[in-house]
Amino acid sequence: MSTPVITYNRGMSRWEPNARSRLEQAALELYRERGFDQTTVAEIAARAGLTERTFFRYFADKREVLFGGQGALQEIYVSAIASAPESAAPIDAVAAALEAVAPMFRERHAFARQRQTVIAANPGLQERELQKRAALASAMADALRRRGVAEPAASLAAEVGAITFGTAFARWVSEPDAQDLSALIRESLDQLKLITAGK
Amino acid sequence: MSTPVITYNRGMSRWEPNARSRLEQAALELYRERGFDQTTVAEIAARAGLTERTFFRYFADKREVLFGGQGALQEIYVSAIASAPESAAPIDAVAAALEAVAPMFRERHAFARQRQTVIAANPGLQERELQKRAALASAMADALRRRGVAEPAASLAAEVGAITFGTAFARWVSEPDAQDLSALIRESLDQLKLITAGK
Repeated sequence: MSTPVITYNRGMSRWEPNARSRLEQAALELYRERGFDQTTVAEIAARAGLTERTFFRYFADKREVLFGGQGALQEIYVSAIASAPESAAPIDAVAAALEAVAPMFRERHAFARQRQTVIAANPGLQERELQKRAALASAMADALRRRGVAEPAASLAAEVGAITFGTAFARWVSEPDAQDLSALIRESLDQLKLITAGK
Repeated sequence: MSTPVITYNRGMSRWEPNARSRLEQAALELYRERGFDQTTVAEIAARAGLTERTFFRYFADKREVLFGGQGALQEIYVSAIASAPESAAPIDAVAAALEAVAPMFRERHAFARQRQTVIAANPGLQERELQKRAALASAMADALRRRGVAEPAASLAAEVGAITFGTAFARWVSEPDAQDLSALIRESLDQLKLITAGK
């Protein structure tokens, strides 16, 4: 009996090892070398040794390389708030959501630092980043309202969550060595509690 | 002796009564009727019965009709924080700044409501609004650092201020009758303190 021969044809293959991370890395290199606006998808694919078609299997456009994680983040926030104990105060439900998100970034410190450099160099991307933050805060506020939290408490608690995460994340990104993001989030929230208490 | 005759020549005059508010009103009407992107400066000037040249004496471009107050706001925030008593906690310096800004809006409720409608209809203006808020928070954080407040406390207190003001302002704008903005700011800050205290 003959064994079926599996041929591996690079050009036709629909699967490439580590395609997503190769594309991300190539994109970040090019965004930093040439600027985000000056980089094309064709150049990113070429740098990664992949086709444009492969690029578009992973990302809708070159901006999504930087902002593609937003949907997943939002889902984690929302489901963590929904599943917090019924007795949890709004701020505790929000704290649980921030902690639930931290593990997503465990292997992403180098990526986050490079991404930060690219965004800092481009006002359009900075506005997009602010919009991302506003959208995540608004999703948390919705999730709190579904728990029966009234306005303006729901919006305020969600905004406090966004500030807490933003401050912790900025600190995490600013250090060349990856610290424990969860610990930074807890510190940031503790500090915020002291500040609003007038200390 | 002959009395000097003052001639008022509308076409040549460098001064028009209420030019700024006539231009603002004309701009807001057009932004709401046609959309911000579809409105030109020529149309705004014509609607106000003024020249384009007069428009450009008051506003750098059509976006500045909506965002021109940012510089003045920033100055008030910064000087209020600088002049808070040395013993004031960061959150109290920020609260003083928010209270100092409230009187600027006393006669601006109708304007603010129309402006809000225009911004809500245009994603580009929403991003600009987020950017304005971020810039004001960053100016407050700078002012706190000049008082010797360390990081991240300075940034956190400034962000708390931005949230507090944003929540109070949104509530003020949402009501057809102008309430006391200062009172709404104090309520919003009290509520934020309760939330971070886990209540």
